[in-house]
Amino acid sequence: MDRKEFRDLAPPAEAHEAIASLSLEAGIERVSLEDARGRVLVARLDAELDVPGFDRATLDGYALRARDTFSADEADPARLAVVGEVHAGEEPAVELEGGQAVEISTGAVMPRGADAMAPVERTDDDGDDVLVRTSVAPGDNVMFAGADVAAGERALGPGTTITPRDVGLLSALGIDEVPVRKRPRVGIVSTGDELVRPGEDVDSARGEIYDVNSYTIAAGVEDAGGEAVLYPHAGDDREEMERILREAASECDLVLSSGSTSASAVDVIYRVIEEGGELLLHGVRVKPGKPMLVGRLEDSAYVGLPGYPVSAMMVFRTFVAPAIREAAGVPEPEAATVTGRLARRERYGEGRLRLMPVGLVEPGPPSTASSGGDRADGDGAATPDADTERAPLVYPVDKGSGATTSLAEADGVVEVPPDVDYLEAGEPVDVRLFSPDVRPPSVLGVGEDDPTVNRLLDRLENPRYLSVGSRPALRRLREGVPDVAVVAGPLGDDAGEIAVSVPGTDSDAGEPVDLGSWEREWGLLVRPGNPDDVDGVAALIDRDLRFVNRTTDSGLRTSLDRTLADRAAERDTDRRDLERSIDGYDVGLRAHESPARRVLAGEADAGLGLAETADRLELEFVPLGRQLVRLLANPDRVDRDGVRHLERALADDA
Amino acid sequence: MDRKEFRDLAPPAEAHEAIASLSLEAGIERVSLEDARGRVLVARLDAELDVPGFDRATLDGYALRARDTFSADEADPARLAVVGEVHAGEEPAVELEGGQAVEISTGAVMPRGADAMAPVERTDDDGDDVLVRTSVAPGDNVMFAGADVAAGERALGPGTTITPRDVGLLSALGIDEVPVRKRPRVGIVSTGDELVRPGEDVDSARGEIYDVNSYTIAAGVEDAGGEAVLYPHAGDDREEMERILREAASECDLVLSSGSTSASAVDVIYRVIEEGGELLLHGVRVKPGKPMLVGRLEDSAYVGLPGYPVSAMMVFRTFVAPAIREAAGVPEPEAATVTGRLARRERYGEGRLRLMPVGLVEPGPPSTASSGGDRADGDGAATPDADTERAPLVYPVDKGSGATTSLAEADGVVEVPPDVDYLEAGEPVDVRLFSPDVRPPSVLGVGEDDPTVNRLLDRLENPRYLSVGSRPALRRLREGVPDVAVVAGPLGDDAGEIAVSVPGTDSDAGEPVDLGSWEREWGLLVRPGNPDDVDGVAALIDRDLRFVNRTTDSGLRTSLDRTLADRAAERDTDRRDLERSIDGYDVGLRAHESPARRVLAGEADAGLGLAETADRLELEFVPLGRQLVRLLANPDRVDRDGVRHLERALADDA
Repeated sequence: MDRKEFRDLAPPAEAHEAIASLSLEAGIERVSLEDARGRVLVARLDAELDVPGFDRATLDGYALRARDTFSADEADPARLAVVGEVHAGEEPAVELEGGQAVEISTGAVMPRGADAMAPVERTDDDGDDVLVRTSVAPGDNVMFAGADVAAGERALGPGTTITPRDVGLLSALGIDEVPVRKRPRVGIVSTGDELVRPGEDVDSARGEIYDVNSYTIAAGVEDAGGEAVLYPHAGDDREEMERILREAASECDLVLSSGSTSASAVDVIYRVIEEGGELLLHGVRVKPGKPMLVGRLEDSAYVGLPGYPVSAMMVFRTFVAPAIREAAGVPEPEAATVTGRLARRERYGEGRLRLMPVGLVEPGPPSTASSGGDRADGDGAATPDADTERAPLVYPVDKGSGATTSLAEADGVVEVPPDVDYLEAGEPVDVRLFSPDVRPPSVLGVGEDDPTVNRLLDRLENPRYLSVGSRPALRRLREGVPDVAVVAGPLGDDAGEIAVSVPGTDSDAGEPVDLGSWEREWGLLVRPGNPDDVDGVAALIDRDLRFVNRTTDSGLRTSLDRTLADRAAERDTDRRDLERSIDGYDVGLRAHESPARRVLAGEADAGLGLAETADRLELEFVPLGRQLVRLLANPDRVDRDGVRHLERALADDA
Repeated sequence: MDRKEFRDLAPPAEAHEAIASLSLEAGIERVSLEDARGRVLVARLDAELDVPGFDRATLDGYALRARDTFSADEADPARLAVVGEVHAGEEPAVELEGGQAVEISTGAVMPRGADAMAPVERTDDDGDDVLVRTSVAPGDNVMFAGADVAAGERALGPGTTITPRDVGLLSALGIDEVPVRKRPRVGIVSTGDELVRPGEDVDSARGEIYDVNSYTIAAGVEDAGGEAVLYPHAGDDREEMERILREAASECDLVLSSGSTSASAVDVIYRVIEEGGELLLHGVRVKPGKPMLVGRLEDSAYVGLPGYPVSAMMVFRTFVAPAIREAAGVPEPEAATVTGRLARRERYGEGRLRLMPVGLVEPGPPSTASSGGDRADGDGAATPDADTERAPLVYPVDKGSGATTSLAEADGVVEVPPDVDYLEAGEPVDVRLFSPDVRPPSVLGVGEDDPTVNRLLDRLENPRYLSVGSRPALRRLREGVPDVAVVAGPLGDDAGEIAVSVPGTDSDAGEPVDLGSWEREWGLLVRPGNPDDVDGVAALIDRDLRFVNRTTDSGLRTSLDRTLADRAAERDTDRRDLERSIDGYDVGLRAHESPARRVLAGEADAGLGLAETADRLELEFVPLGRQLVRLLANPDRVDRDGVRHLERALADDA
């Protein structure tokens, strides 16, 4: 069999139709009242009894005949003979006649013959009699049988998603079990020799990676109201793969496989589907995610998701989750779409529907100059311009299709139609949030990967920080998207003087605002006891030591480059030559701890890093200098709560 | 011990403080990745490894040295010797030198010596060589180790509520267990001899009712992120009640009791709390719900809720649920507040904070006259006036404090401060929705309880229908709140000519719009075989039969009253005399099936009802007439989707 190439890609609408044509519905089950919350009723429930089931006293007091209290008041109370008492949960032992009263508790059954009651506060005991100091009308302080719900009334309709309040209604009707839609059972099959389940050991030398899709998709299935079943990992063994696919199909309403990148896995899936079912569609014109299969396997629906985690999740959300929700009877969350403004011009034009993961940033609070008046008069209505200003900024999140983690940094998705070549900065876009409870981060920071920053972030609620390095942070701050940038070392020297743009406009907001700074000691991290007697960069240049560097984006690297330039000047040589003489100078790692970890693992003799890291990981530290790390704010956002919290956290830390 | 009278009520803020002073936090537990969704992380998680863990090919193709492809193109491909192949999940067996290439699969480890790869589509096999028809730069189509997440990077911060996307990040890092906040364990104790658990038999003659609070509060606890534990029902046995309270306190972080209405239960609770803990507060200045206790029992927090279900739920939502969410680390849902306009003037002025359950009605779609222009130019911004018009109408839902079911007919709560004497019609009010996914009903109907209406409603998604009877329905329609009214019998004759108000304004919207009608046959329902030979109302008047009537609000009752007036005219007597001669004429039941059910139960010989009901319940039917049931729409709402659906459902039904 030839390997399929997904040449004739189907339009997205066809994929939706194909999935809709497969029935994911799982039937009906009866659940107890305790498990009914959030489930979807399949049939109308009518009241089978009156609530309350009897005429009920709504207060403590005396049951009586209203006409016996006619014209009674404080000055001239009515005297009635007390002929008994009745408490909640008791059957009244007496029937009441004219001139009589019965002591009664809240919730108790009104005795026969009584048609009203007087509250105890308006009565006085007087031997065997009671003096009633008020007149009451028939029905006063009595809740009649069926007043709340009458037998035969429609209580809850089919399709109702049962809330705690509905649980209250069902309890009142004595219903302890309800017929609800069964959650569709969704089997998740992962294939591929390179996949390892989290918790087990991964062998990177063999190219093993953790299985991201199984758990992520399972969580997505549960989010959509389905029941996820994880099947054992099939590897690339064809027979085992086929056995697991067929087992899943026989046990589930929908089988999801997330594609192995190997050709053999694709072949097995094709063959199994073609032998035991039907393939309706392969390949969809979307980005990311074109390699998508839709079909039937035995009595189960089948969808094959792409292998890359971001692609798999985007395809799942766009095409599969709505079908699961539909089958589960869970309504599409309405609050889950917000309109924002695109933070920068976005080019595209590939002729495929693009599912673009995006992050949101809230604008700063309105400046006092432009708001006050309108809001003070209390109608709260905003002018159209102010409205647009209040809309969140939307920026694309893209670490590349192979990235597994970029969705954790995104808040939702913008669908860009196939015929759109570019979106302008400032253009309004609809963002489908990943869930209705997604909230934009309290503060969006970008910059240097730094332990102090990490500590400060821990004190904030819902912050987002992209450790892109100091250089890209400055660029992004200039573009006006983040709230704050953290810039370390020499790059920060003139950072206070750049002009921060207002995204989507031609104007700028002024220079960054300095929120504070701290110093960090940097140098070389070597093994405990410093076995190679490293005493500075000279040792790296002149001796045969394996070094691990940071990326050129980092502030540490900039400082190291400057040190090396100084050495080059001293030695009257070119900096490039010194760089070339250091083994590993070009190997730049992204995170501040990464070089230290290489040293710890014995893969290097020295790494660029911080004194603080050496302490934490119990390595030896060779100091090379101190550098300032600056916390700079977008001038338009200094009044955001999150920015203020961060500033305070820094002040407290110092 | 004296019975407490809740004389010195605490202000609501004090109740919030008292509950906040009790720690509900339940500590930390470790959960597996599969159970992590929705849980709240208690500690920062840093990456312990690089993702990917190796330099990874992002396509199928050939790993090579970029400089070997310098200036290669379609016309002049670079020729490289293929020295091996590497698949995903394999350790590369070769190290690559200049002039060489290695066939590589997507996801496989880049062999040593290679620094880029060429996609297979831009190459041709040629014996043992490969021709590369493109030039690539170092790093092209390679994802470097740590490019996604680098070891040591901050991955997720403390307080993160774990989403499916976070599950993806955790999987990628190989983390299969995470430390999360334990859900606070909330014990629910219900007391009172009159309470029966749903599913069991209730003896109405003894005043028994179903226990509504336990299940409703349990569902509310789970909604707020807690774990609910239902304790066996304690009845009014003092020793048993004390034993259960102490058991719950020893096992839970919070004990909730929902008050028995009996004095003895209150006494036991007071004593147990005073002996084994501390009472911080009793009685809060709110309506409904003043009898509320806050204290400590052994190591557990304790809150005593009022006994009436609506009161209990309101107090729970306002004071207890936020504390449970806080302890569970579940953020207050932000989308859960909407601003609406009050549908009618609401008087109050009791000096207590009022928690007013309300329903929402969406306004109709904008009339074409007033919208078009603005919206066509695409900015979508509304003028302040249009904005106010688009706000939902808010109407109070109140069936009395004893009602158990009114919350099922409400969408949220308006808090009216103690110093407000009245709210004007049209006034903007903030409604805290019961949950962020609450959606106003698709259609709000009021009117006659009728089997055809019930059937039509079953075809709609999320309708709301209040079977208040025909007469109140007309009044409400006139006030302009509901979308439609269902009016039966003579009351409907002139119903088309009333003037429907626009709530909150002095203007009216015109006359109701007729959406259709149907006929129903009404008469007397008697036991099968008609053992009493009932042949019409004369039998009720002249013979000693027990009759069951409908309330005066219903269209059936109006028709029966007219029939009786005709008989009175024939007999040349007063209608009142005939009414008095019918045993049970004054006993009016609210639902259309209720009289029939009394006949079925042997409690009456004849009931007022419909032919359709006789069929369904297998009773004998004595016809008295036919009446028209009219479906009338608020002229401002005829274009609402829900109203159109209802109109279509009626047309289909006919």
